[in-house]
Amino acid sequence: MPDATLTQSMLILVEDELRRAVALAGDPGLEPLRAMLAYHMGWEGEGAGPAAQGKRIRPLLVLLTCAAAGGVWEQALPAAAAVELVHNFSLIHDDIEDNSPLRRGRQTVWKRWGIPQAVNAGDAMFTLAHLWLLRLAQSTSAETALAACQILQSTCLHLTQGQYLDLAYEQRRDLQQADYWPMVGGKTAALLAACTGLGALAAGAPEARCQAYRLFGERLGLAFQVQDDLLGIWGSAEMTGKSAESDLAAGKKSLPVLFGLEQKGRFFQRWQQGPISLEQAPAVANLLEQEGAHRFTQAAADRLTAEALQALDEAQPRGEAGQLLRDLANRLLQRQS
Amino acid sequence: MPDATLTQSMLILVEDELRRAVALAGDPGLEPLRAMLAYHMGWEGEGAGPAAQGKRIRPLLVLLTCAAAGGVWEQALPAAAAVELVHNFSLIHDDIEDNSPLRRGRQTVWKRWGIPQAVNAGDAMFTLAHLWLLRLAQSTSAETALAACQILQSTCLHLTQGQYLDLAYEQRRDLQQADYWPMVGGKTAALLAACTGLGALAAGAPEARCQAYRLFGERLGLAFQVQDDLLGIWGSAEMTGKSAESDLAAGKKSLPVLFGLEQKGRFFQRWQQGPISLEQAPAVANLLEQEGAHRFTQAAADRLTAEALQALDEAQPRGEAGQLLRDLANRLLQRQS
Repeated sequence: MPDATLTQSMLILVEDELRRAVALAGDPGLEPLRAMLAYHMGWEGEGAGPAAQGKRIRPLLVLLTCAAAGGVWEQALPAAAAVELVHNFSLIHDDIEDNSPLRRGRQTVWKRWGIPQAVNAGDAMFTLAHLWLLRLAQSTSAETALAACQILQSTCLHLTQGQYLDLAYEQRRDLQQADYWPMVGGKTAALLAACTGLGALAAGAPEARCQAYRLFGERLGLAFQVQDDLLGIWGSAEMTGKSAESDLAAGKKSLPVLFGLEQKGRFFQRWQQGPISLEQAPAVANLLEQEGAHRFTQAAADRLTAEALQALDEAQPRGEAGQLLRDLANRLLQRQS
Repeated sequence: MPDATLTQSMLILVEDELRRAVALAGDPGLEPLRAMLAYHMGWEGEGAGPAAQGKRIRPLLVLLTCAAAGGVWEQALPAAAAVELVHNFSLIHDDIEDNSPLRRGRQTVWKRWGIPQAVNAGDAMFTLAHLWLLRLAQSTSAETALAACQILQSTCLHLTQGQYLDLAYEQRRDLQQADYWPMVGGKTAALLAACTGLGALAAGAPEARCQAYRLFGERLGLAFQVQDDLLGIWGSAEMTGKSAESDLAAGKKSLPVLFGLEQKGRFFQRWQQGPISLEQAPAVANLLEQEGAHRFTQAAADRLTAEALQALDEAQPRGEAGQLLRDLANRLLQRQS
């Protein structure tokens, strides 16, 4: 493993950048609005601390890509903060939409301050993301900043489209594998593609290389999600931190489930009969495995992982940052090892 | 009254621009998401039609300002559409936050599709606004587009700050006049200031003139809101379209109410005793008038109106658009006549 000092430096400056962005919300008299956002970011309030902050993988992807593409990573800091703010905006609103009371072991914003203030706090986080991104005009150029805005706003549209599908799928009983990809493409992969795309853009990389980095981010996101789907049904509780088989009990329309439904076999029949309890989940997971869903999903994850790493090779990432970028991808993709 | 053909042309092109922006949400398989937005815009679904669309005052302000400041108003169309989309995004979310089942005589988005889809639809409208604004780079320049993004995003932050205060005030019993201005400054005036500011920017007007137009928009917004507060308590039902005294019964913390509370007189005592029914409202309105709240609020409206019209004079609006801009301001400010 290479020296992690570079990663540490990046994480410190990202956190500083994020704090300064969130501080913009807190004009005199508006301190409680800033405090709500700071709570969600994991800096303040009950349970604050590193575990409440998440891993900041998205900003790291921006900065490592910028450096690996030959840029000065400090210049990409506004973009790194912007993607993390977009990610957190979407978490605040997703928690409302999914009726989730907890995130990272703490009360969600809506649970603590009510739905009205949480909807508005998410909107504030959203606008701070885009406001902060405009600072790229100082660190790079007006054209680069505009191109970055285009990337991030298109990504946000994609996010809302993925979320629309996810919510709409709750009502549907006729879903197929083909329905899976636009949903996770929007919900997970689009923002990771924006991370690598913005990093390469800030580095001033030529279009072909930017494209390779974007493809890397997109496949990385898809591979990660498919891997997550596998763990959600067959992973062990120690590794994932959530109870095994929880995705089946939660009725989540993950890739193995959609594959299983298409087989129209015993799993399909069981699914049609109604909710699966936590106790029944291991037996249903076995059924799903016998019908080939595990093998199929693992193959999809392997294919996407190979495509991600191939795209990264084509982007020819350089130096220490290039190596750290590979390491980060491998760490994300091999969570079962 | 001058020829209204220019206004009509503007309104037709704005509507076309808005439809094309909203269409961006409707990729294959996502048509229902687009349809939700089109419903809210008043184009589709039950009760669709001009009455459901609102007056599009904000885009008109952008385009008239652009023309009056010597610009080619067609070049400002992306900004005109963007402010109307921001306005409508905020309505979708405000309706959730205020628990409002109806808007312009139709079911609100959350009432019709549920809170989760409505939060997400608002997010989609928000991102479409900013995505569409980027088209200014084609009709003007990269620098102008970036400056426009800065104006609109700062305005959105201001909107969420105003909304935070409005929601927070529901819990407070110690409010004063001074609490009123930051709330309506964010909720009403900021977006109107953005309209005139963006119009002047797109025209390439010098900074001093841009500033005069922004001030005009801001004071216009404040004057309009104070006027609305007056009508909400003492207006007649025929003119406002809502039942008179409804603001008192709704417990709305409008300027006359905050003035009245500060007097610590009989109105204050009555307010502390709890909700005011529709039947009690006329008597309480009389009490409020006796304590000077009507006179005070009318004076504030007059002062703000004079400041708005003075700022407009200083901006030296030109030609037919200049006259139409004055007419629009007068129409907005003299709704009681």
